[in-house]
Amino acid sequence: MFSDTHKQNKKVGEPPGTPTYTGNKPAAPSIIDVVTYNQHDYHETTGTDLDKCLPEKIEKNVYTWVSIHGLNDSNLMSAIAKRYDLHPLTLEDIMNVEQRPKVEEFDNYLFITLKILLWKTKSSTFSVKQLSLVLGHDFVLSFQEGETPHFDGIKKRLQSTANQRLRQHGSDYLAYRLIDAVVDKYFIVLEALGDDIEAIEERIIAAPTTQNMHTMYRFKRQMLLVRKAIWPMREAIGHLVHVEDKLITNFTRVYLRDVYDHTVQAIDTLETFRDMVGSMMDMYLSSLTNRMNEIMKTLTIIATIFMPITTIASIYGMNFIYMPELKYHWGYPIVLCVMLSIAIGMLYYFRTKKWI
Amino acid sequence: MFSDTHKQNKKVGEPPGTPTYTGNKPAAPSIIDVVTYNQHDYHETTGTDLDKCLPEKIEKNVYTWVSIHGLNDSNLMSAIAKRYDLHPLTLEDIMNVEQRPKVEEFDNYLFITLKILLWKTKSSTFSVKQLSLVLGHDFVLSFQEGETPHFDGIKKRLQSTANQRLRQHGSDYLAYRLIDAVVDKYFIVLEALGDDIEAIEERIIAAPTTQNMHTMYRFKRQMLLVRKAIWPMREAIGHLVHVEDKLITNFTRVYLRDVYDHTVQAIDTLETFRDMVGSMMDMYLSSLTNRMNEIMKTLTIIATIFMPITTIASIYGMNFIYMPELKYHWGYPIVLCVMLSIAIGMLYYFRTKKWI
Amino acid sequence: MFSDTHKQNKKVGEPPGTPTYTGNKPAAPSIIDVVTYNQHDYHETTGTDLDKCLPEKIEKNVYTWVSIHGLNDSNLMSAIAKRYDLHPLTLEDIMNVEQRPKVEEFDNYLFITLKILLWKTKSSTFSVKQLSLVLGHDFVLSFQEGETPHFDGIKKRLQSTANQRLRQHGSDYLAYRLIDAVVDKYFIVLEALGDDIEAIEERIIAAPTTQNMHTMYRFKRQMLLVRKAIWPMREAIGHLVHVEDKLITNFTRVYLRDVYDHTVQAIDTLETFRDMVGSMMDMYLSSLTNRMNEIMKTLTIIATIFMPITTIASIYGMNFIYMPELKYHWGYPIVLCVMLSIAIGMLYYFRTKKWI
Amino acid sequence: MFSDTHKQNKKVGEPPGTPTYTGNKPAAPSIIDVVTYNQHDYHETTGTDLDKCLPEKIEKNVYTWVSIHGLNDSNLMSAIAKRYDLHPLTLEDIMNVEQRPKVEEFDNYLFITLKILLWKTKSSTFSVKQLSLVLGHDFVLSFQEGETPHFDGIKKRLQSTANQRLRQHGSDYLAYRLIDAVVDKYFIVLEALGDDIEAIEERIIAAPTTQNMHTMYRFKRQMLLVRKAIWPMREAIGHLVHVEDKLITNFTRVYLRDVYDHTVQAIDTLETFRDMVGSMMDMYLSSLTNRMNEIMKTLTIIATIFMPITTIASIYGMNFIYMPELKYHWGYPIVLCVMLSIAIGMLYYFRTKKWI
Amino acid sequence: MFSDTHKQNKKVGEPPGTPTYTGNKPAAPSIIDVVTYNQHDYHETTGTDLDKCLPEKIEKNVYTWVSIHGLNDSNLMSAIAKRYDLHPLTLEDIMNVEQRPKVEEFDNYLFITLKILLWKTKSSTFSVKQLSLVLGHDFVLSFQEGETPHFDGIKKRLQSTANQRLRQHGSDYLAYRLIDAVVDKYFIVLEALGDDIEAIEERIIAAPTTQNMHTMYRFKRQMLLVRKAIWPMREAIGHLVHVEDKLITNFTRVYLRDVYDHTVQAIDTLETFRDMVGSMMDMYLSSLTNRMNEIMKTLTIIATIFMPITTIASIYGMNFIYMPELKYHWGYPIVLCVMLSIAIGMLYYFRTKKWI
Repeated sequence: MFSDTHKQNKKVGEPPGTPTYTGNKPAAPSIIDVVTYNQHDYHETTGTDLDKCLPEKIEKNVYTWVSIHGLNDSNLMSAIAKRYDLHPLTLEDIMNVEQRPKVEEFDNYLFITLKILLWKTKSSTFSVKQLSLVLGHDFVLSFQEGETPHFDGIKKRLQSTANQRLRQHGSDYLAYRLIDAVVDKYFIVLEALGDDIEAIEERIIAAPTTQNMHTMYRFKRQMLLVRKAIWPMREAIGHLVHVEDKLITNFTRVYLRDVYDHTVQAIDTLETFRDMVGSMMDMYLSSLTNRMNEIMKTLTIIATIFMPITTIASIYGMNFIYMPELKYHWGYPIVLCVMLSIAIGMLYYFRTKKWI
Repeated sequence: MFSDTHKQNKKVGEPPGTPTYTGNKPAAPSIIDVVTYNQHDYHETTGTDLDKCLPEKIEKNVYTWVSIHGLNDSNLMSAIAKRYDLHPLTLEDIMNVEQRPKVEEFDNYLFITLKILLWKTKSSTFSVKQLSLVLGHDFVLSFQEGETPHFDGIKKRLQSTANQRLRQHGSDYLAYRLIDAVVDKYFIVLEALGDDIEAIEERIIAAPTTQNMHTMYRFKRQMLLVRKAIWPMREAIGHLVHVEDKLITNFTRVYLRDVYDHTVQAIDTLETFRDMVGSMMDMYLSSLTNRMNEIMKTLTIIATIFMPITTIASIYGMNFIYMPELKYHWGYPIVLCVMLSIAIGMLYYFRTKKWI
Repeated sequence: MFSDTHKQNKKVGEPPGTPTYTGNKPAAPSIIDVVTYNQHDYHETTGTDLDKCLPEKIEKNVYTWVSIHGLNDSNLMSAIAKRYDLHPLTLEDIMNVEQRPKVEEFDNYLFITLKILLWKTKSSTFSVKQLSLVLGHDFVLSFQEGETPHFDGIKKRLQSTANQRLRQHGSDYLAYRLIDAVVDKYFIVLEALGDDIEAIEERIIAAPTTQNMHTMYRFKRQMLLVRKAIWPMREAIGHLVHVEDKLITNFTRVYLRDVYDHTVQAIDTLETFRDMVGSMMDMYLSSLTNRMNEIMKTLTIIATIFMPITTIASIYGMNFIYMPELKYHWGYPIVLCVMLSIAIGMLYYFRTKKWI
Repeated sequence: MFSDTHKQNKKVGEPPGTPTYTGNKPAAPSIIDVVTYNQHDYHETTGTDLDKCLPEKIEKNVYTWVSIHGLNDSNLMSAIAKRYDLHPLTLEDIMNVEQRPKVEEFDNYLFITLKILLWKTKSSTFSVKQLSLVLGHDFVLSFQEGETPHFDGIKKRLQSTANQRLRQHGSDYLAYRLIDAVVDKYFIVLEALGDDIEAIEERIIAAPTTQNMHTMYRFKRQMLLVRKAIWPMREAIGHLVHVEDKLITNFTRVYLRDVYDHTVQAIDTLETFRDMVGSMMDMYLSSLTNRMNEIMKTLTIIATIFMPITTIASIYGMNFIYMPELKYHWGYPIVLCVMLSIAIGMLYYFRTKKWI
Repeated sequence: MFSDTHKQNKKVGEPPGTPTYTGNKPAAPSIIDVVTYNQHDYHETTGTDLDKCLPEKIEKNVYTWVSIHGLNDSNLMSAIAKRYDLHPLTLEDIMNVEQRPKVEEFDNYLFITLKILLWKTKSSTFSVKQLSLVLGHDFVLSFQEGETPHFDGIKKRLQSTANQRLRQHGSDYLAYRLIDAVVDKYFIVLEALGDDIEAIEERIIAAPTTQNMHTMYRFKRQMLLVRKAIWPMREAIGHLVHVEDKLITNFTRVYLRDVYDHTVQAIDTLETFRDMVGSMMDMYLSSLTNRMNEIMKTLTIIATIFMPITTIASIYGMNFIYMPELKYHWGYPIVLCVMLSIAIGMLYYFRTKKWI
């Protein structure tokens, strides 16, 4: 999975604006989902043909949300780029799914690239997907790899006729809502990571094993992936809050500030995790050394007790003809007593040293 | 306890301003405490019904302090939000008790979120509670989970008729006093942590055990929690000091600068603790290695003394028919002397090496 | 290879603008490659004589790209410097191939120094070469050591008559394309490093050896070299994006911002690698300690089982005349049983301790 | 000593400006030392009664230096505060001797809090005292705990009638001289710490012991205390240099810049010490491991030489009736030779491995 | 050598401008070297008497370079200070040779303090000397301890009548050339340090010894000294580049920017060294642990093979009367076979574990 993150498929020497899809999804047809709405109306078309889905002329005071799932159809992408007058670099960035999260201002639109963290409950892993947003005066374009369900809630809310902010306010508020949904998902992944930390923690305190070490290592790698996705978000969304652009109303700016706070909070949590894993690593290493001390103590105690006794026994096992002790009637019991005293003395010595 | 800090209960797709309580207190009725005062008058009402507690019209030149204990009653919260014209995000932030400390400016009020560190002497632990303040022209709203006694002193002082700043100056000075009380509490927790450090320190110097390691680890985790609560305070209060808002008078600004200094001092102390625990960890690890050296030395000394003697004894324990030494009359004493010399020689060698 | 990076051959006391070549290529004649082009025309001359290659007068609206391969011919360099009115320091910086990447503004041109990372597939290593660019109103000068093929793609594109940006836009766009080609190459090296990391990783998890450690060390050194080349690029290209100079059009500035993003992404990846290698080092060290624990456990188990048995056997090997047990008929079997019990008891003890 | 640094005695709920002395000196009467001087005159009064010491009216063009030793007399402090119109927070900060070094601007004065490091040659330790300065248009107030001799030199110089800057220039120059004296003292403590480092260093290189480790730990703690005192000084004095206040003349500003440089130099030295102690710790730990290697090698050599010999001897000590070797006449010498060969072979093997 | 760097000989209480020499050179007479030059003329006088060397009146359009070697003659220093109207602090800073590199602006001159790193090829060490420069409108004063040859090249060039920048441009260009010569010297020291690193590196990879550790430690200390000298240079020269002062012409500013780049490059190299030594330390420590593993493996293999055999032999060495095996004719060969099988089995087991 890791090697995905550092591949860059663009051919050197190609003109920079050449749209080349860099992801590894099989080429399924892209799905286009066009929503047009304002305070009074709501209309949605889904299909694979842009011309059919997107009406040629859209009335004033109507907001359009074009959502593209699947980025491999370069003809479609070019058509959209032409329709909305996107810069060649924007098109390239949308199709290169290894972008760093960022916000870029163009003459007639804002280009926003984010990372979606998708938690897979089954396998207890997460995957990183790219979401690109183009925010214009009265439209929002969203581009993602494959179909993902995290904006379903927002779509439902758009459909509802109840008096509500989402329909009243413009495209910038819709863009905010999409970003907010992405950032909210981060906390699900962070919570899962937090649960993992606690699980490792308990196991390390109970009994440190090589397995724990490998788990910690895998965990650290996952954190690096999350970090790489979330850290640049701070800068990107901070830029969005302070960008002097008419596209962002003051009304929405207050909400974006809130998303910014959430991003900072996610980074805080991640850094806390980092510190905790660092501490755990120290604890693990000291446990290993402690354990070795235990092992060595056992060996030393056994050796220290039995070696002197064996030596004494070996001495009286020698075959010298003139060994007067051997003939004493009490020789054997006395030697046994001496051996016992040595054993007891050693044990006492170890007790004073608090080894046993 | 830890998992509390990274949970985020908001449903993805919900409109952002939906007030949802994220704490884990059981749903007891919220208590409303309304204090109206100025230089001459003081009036206080406590209850659970907003309409009864808060008079519909408040005279000019009278300051109101509405203090809410318990955040789970969303109807009450909405009523207050409507009364004081709070932004939907403010309401959401008040009820989401996992906020990062921050200060936000709105058109007609300042919103301040802080963390209260409550030290529990009985269990020698602390808990983290959220305090939200809304500072308006002539009112202060304070929101907290459950009932907490740390503002009792301020209330008493408000009641007193003696000539004093608290009654003379406006709502911004009251807000300052509340923040100051929160920050002062930090030093109680820091002092307790400092005592803990000294206790661990003495034990590690005396004799390092696995238990010390676990204690240090728990300690580090506690420090991370404190850190997460205090660090953002620096930025938040710094923002409050420099905010260009008519709500904060120059008179109060001087006092806020003082609270800012206290926050920085708390962070300094925390960082010093961090460094100390790092050094202790080094000391602990080197103690473990030292200890292993001691153990290994014991084993080596014993083995080195007794192994050669046993070998000699074994040799003379062989049953060869032609072993001339066995027949010498002085064979046995000579061998004993040789053994003794080996033992003494080894001990002397170890002494020159300073092992014993 | 390393010692190359810190040598500085300039003689102390020499006037600073003295052009001295500091690389270690043998003195082959420098190759000059002059391309003149505009939207309609394209002309290329290659040779070793500047006067023959570079026409004395170039028409208006024609862009010139002078590409020098080989920097050891100081006469040639001086001639070019004179022709394009280069500052003495620029000339010195071009010939000193140990420059730190940077961008410098002069009155009539921008001077840009970059590092090219060349991956050699055969030896699985990379080398660092310097590229210096001088960007004037209607010319680009590029200087490199030896002949390198990484701009062939750009040249081909320049030759093509198809309607395209490269021919339409001025010298600043050409300079951008050259820089972009250099930065794109970084990802090839980073990808190779990433593959290396995964290879080491698998080997360390399987079985840690001293060899792994040396590999990791070599890897870290390589990363330091890459780091030294890429880090200053961020600052340099960032400077280029924000430089207030008429030489950079707004059209090109958008593209430079894109290169800047790529550089930041390369740095991000490098820092992630750094963290990963740090974690691997921890894992390696803990593996070593774990291994020692394994070894010590084996030794301790063996010693603890056989030492007491040997001691008992030695005791009954003593030659005392009065050892009543020796005469019992069941003495031998009983002693054997005792020995067996000790062995079994010890094994059981180790099992309860989870050592076996 | 450590616990002193994090205690904060202020009662929560007390009004912030309540002057409460937080130090632990016994309550001796405060000593007031009033110096009035200008270019021509010098007058000094010392006592414990403010009214007697400080004349009610001071002529124009006369500078006053009021020096208070002992901060526990809150009546006196209030009297001074009233006389010089000090802000309640200033008074509180003066009496709270756990302040972080800082500079605060008030309408009519500058408030400066510093830490004095007092080196005690006898006990080879230092203590941290607080110095508060209030710099007004024509007065300097200095507040310290207990009597300290470090300003005696400045007082002597003030008394001298010789033509000199101290009498010619105003109160800001006097304040500078007081600060300069404090910062100069830091180098005495740093020098003592430097000598300590060298002493530990030599001992660790000679022979690492647990005692060294404890010394290093104590040393690190001392450095943390110094660090906590000096680091904020940089910011504080830097603020003083750049403060736009008429109280600081350009003449004095040049001198303050010099004190700032000294502070930075002190911090540099401290950071260098920090790095050195870190390296020493590494060296100590590697020494421990090296030592263990030595111990293990000794054990292994002994065991490897004597174990095989003992085994052979044991074999020929068996009591089998049919052991033909036992009857060979040369059996015993041959076995001895074999044993000797094994011993020599092992020693040779260890020599090839460079263990001996 | 180290203790030199933190001594501060100034007496506390002394007026700050008192010039006191803090170096430890023996008091030899200071040598004064006065060079007056312009585009047409060059004149040089060397001596120990200021009045003789420095003409009372210097014509317009003539630049003066006064170079003082030896700083212990305070009368001379005062005379120079008086002649060129130097600030008392400047004089103090010149004579205090423990200054941190810095640039200070005064009304009529710029004061620059640098560190010269002098490499001594014989002893393979370097020493740190201080160079102070005073740059006025038409003069440069340079102050150094003892006589040092590193400006000889510049002097020679000044003497030469050939058309050249050094004579054409003013005193600021001369100051630049002096600084450039100092910074160039850094690379000689860095190169020597780099060679040291490679030497240690090879030795550690070959065989880690305690000696390597001590070498690494000494090396780290040297790097700290270099670091302390070079790091502040970045800030100082950066300040010089951006200082808004008429003394620095735009012509020279371009050159100073070049020196700044060199300083940054030196710092980069130093930081790379730092990282390399850190990695080496890791490699050294892991080598030690690896080595211990080797030792322990040897011991364990020997013990595991011989202990069981010895135990069996001991059993058949017991003197029980009824031990039926002893009487079997094949008993002895069978036991020998069993022993051999055990040995072979153990060896096989260790081979499967890849220990041998």
